[in-house]
Amino acid sequence: MRILILGSGGVGSAAVRIAVRRDFFDALVLADYDAARPQALVDDIADDRLVAAQVDASDSDAVADLIREHEITHVLNAVDPRFVLPIFDGCFAAGAVYLDMAMSLSRPHPEKPHELPGVKLGDEQFAQAEKWADAGRLALVGIGVEPGLSDVFARYAEDELFSEIDELGVRDGANLTVDGYDFAPSFSIWTTIEECLNPPVIFEKDRGWYTTPPFSEPEVFDFPEGIGPVECVNVEHEEVLLMPRWTKAKRVTFKYGLGDEFINVLKVLHTLGLDKTEPLTVKGVQVAPRDVVAAGLPDPATLGSRMHGKTCAGVWVRGTGKDGKARSTYLYHVADNEQTMAEYGSQAVVWQTALNPVIALELLATGVWTGSGVLGPEAFDARPFLDLLAADAPRGYGSPWGIEEK
Amino acid sequence: MRILILGSGGVGSAAVRIAVRRDFFDALVLADYDAARPQALVDDIADDRLVAAQVDASDSDAVADLIREHEITHVLNAVDPRFVLPIFDGCFAAGAVYLDMAMSLSRPHPEKPHELPGVKLGDEQFAQAEKWADAGRLALVGIGVEPGLSDVFARYAEDELFSEIDELGVRDGANLTVDGYDFAPSFSIWTTIEECLNPPVIFEKDRGWYTTPPFSEPEVFDFPEGIGPVECVNVEHEEVLLMPRWTKAKRVTFKYGLGDEFINVLKVLHTLGLDKTEPLTVKGVQVAPRDVVAAGLPDPATLGSRMHGKTCAGVWVRGTGKDGKARSTYLYHVADNEQTMAEYGSQAVVWQTALNPVIALELLATGVWTGSGVLGPEAFDARPFLDLLAADAPRGYGSPWGIEEK
Repeated sequence: MRILILGSGGVGSAAVRIAVRRDFFDALVLADYDAARPQALVDDIADDRLVAAQVDASDSDAVADLIREHEITHVLNAVDPRFVLPIFDGCFAAGAVYLDMAMSLSRPHPEKPHELPGVKLGDEQFAQAEKWADAGRLALVGIGVEPGLSDVFARYAEDELFSEIDELGVRDGANLTVDGYDFAPSFSIWTTIEECLNPPVIFEKDRGWYTTPPFSEPEVFDFPEGIGPVECVNVEHEEVLLMPRWTKAKRVTFKYGLGDEFINVLKVLHTLGLDKTEPLTVKGVQVAPRDVVAAGLPDPATLGSRMHGKTCAGVWVRGTGKDGKARSTYLYHVADNEQTMAEYGSQAVVWQTALNPVIALELLATGVWTGSGVLGPEAFDARPFLDLLAADAPRGYGSPWGIEEK
Repeated sequence: MRILILGSGGVGSAAVRIAVRRDFFDALVLADYDAARPQALVDDIADDRLVAAQVDASDSDAVADLIREHEITHVLNAVDPRFVLPIFDGCFAAGAVYLDMAMSLSRPHPEKPHELPGVKLGDEQFAQAEKWADAGRLALVGIGVEPGLSDVFARYAEDELFSEIDELGVRDGANLTVDGYDFAPSFSIWTTIEECLNPPVIFEKDRGWYTTPPFSEPEVFDFPEGIGPVECVNVEHEEVLLMPRWTKAKRVTFKYGLGDEFINVLKVLHTLGLDKTEPLTVKGVQVAPRDVVAAGLPDPATLGSRMHGKTCAGVWVRGTGKDGKARSTYLYHVADNEQTMAEYGSQAVVWQTALNPVIALELLATGVWTGSGVLGPEAFDARPFLDLLAADAPRGYGSPWGIEEK
């Protein structure tokens, strides 16, 4: 296997640091628009399999050329979701397997944005599914932690724990704090505003996909391993688009544990128009309010050493167990910032995202996972993934997951 | 009397429209940095006593020259409080009586901003009180509605209603709404951020002036004439600096009925640093976050015709009545936007501010009020002011005030 990782930001860099401990691949090219960034990482790690490269991820021809130049077999997209389609197209053109952690972007319904979906997350990729399947090529979409590990949990629950599933409810929460700041998001505020203010999407078997106003159906969810109760609300997320395609769940939701303080901040920004991305004229200069908000906050990528706490990703499954009785179970994975910083130099949220595509690449390299078309993580057997995740090194990745009956 | 009003914004313009119905003055010069603005108003009103002029209010020599040129006897400062000192100095130099509606600005205590006052509101004016008194000249400071009418109420309560005052608590609240906006402040958001995020100041006889963190001592106050209960919090305001100089009250506070939604907005802006006035670099341009917030909201001066509701200014006095019994009384004045728009074309908040200095000018013109030094409204007899305010035209201004026992 010859891997190309596009993007040497937090997640791309963490994926390299995780992958170099494994022996399932022959070469790993790390490419970025700024060639100095991947080169610095390659120099630092000093593994003969690593190569740094430069590429413009918005140019599908350039992506295809880089794939051909390095005889790449598998591409992991670790850049901003705005670049999904050119990378996706470049992979098809050059015949490489494509993997990503966020799918092509949505656009709200022009008349009823809080009732009906417009263009959904991933629609532009699934529109090409037949072409990929006919060509016998694989695009494995949404294989980070959420989407990604959450989707693997959903498949595992359907196969091994439940005879009927009423709801697959992804629940994401954390107790991360950052020293020295009253308010310091542990992830991009720009992206958080985008995903939290887009109309959340919900799936119901009888109704199909539909949307609601932002922050709908608030619920306090009690997260495991000391994180405790966090207020969660519906947020637009890929799992709601992926899980219904490969599971029989009657309902699929995604709720994000933003906490009431963060939800309040996002609501105020929206009320004052400070979430807007169109430039305003302010004393003679043009500036987008959302960019001003982001510029005034610390860069989350630089905060790992000041962060404390844990982040939890998982799926709360409700339905009928294999024994015919009602069952309510949370399948989850926790990353502790102290541990991820000590072992990998990556903050917890970034590291937890990067871990899963590396495991998927190993399963593809060893032939445990095979397929063609545009497939989500649910389309593959969950048990070998979860075994490899939890098993101690050197066999596995030594990161246990949990099950809690609710 | 020959009057100069500096500033032809909302309050200055409303003061002219109120004054021209009266015959106590011989000339009224309306001056602004932009000469076209006062000229438009003068042309519109067509009263022979009115003259438009241009002046830079930051230049005390220019202010003095304008006073001399038009043989001005009384100057009303209706510009931004940043210009208090040059106008104040220009009046002294040219020998005119000075009136303002906001006093020289405060600066927080460098080490303990939430415990001790630094430079207080008006300190830079009161530092010159002896000079003004010795020269037999008068500066009547803080004679808008708050400060202004509130201070007149305090003096009235002490003279006529109470034998001992435990607390003079200014309470300001409104039920104003603006059609077509989720969030549209009825006054400058820039100034509101300034006054609400400065440390509020409180006076206690035994302790002197001290400060607290912003938004301290929240209290729901029930305002009269259908406004109803509004959440009020301590805010830095001139009355707390004025009333203790001329009354014997044991405690003086100012609470602003911001309402919980507005308080929340201000807190979020502060938490995210969006209240800051120092420029940030945002994608290559320099911009102050507070200016971005202001630029994204409608200009309150343009909202009068879309506004509905009433605004109330007053003082809640607690202590011992003239009969020796405990007494708790709210003295107040309400302006109804519908009425002020219909009668004067001014929105309620602006009109209510502009009304009081015109009444004070009339009392000075007729010799009912006299004095020298730097004096607050409490230094003058309250009853003739309140009589003139409430009496029907043509004798008075036809705007009744109220008393409510609490």
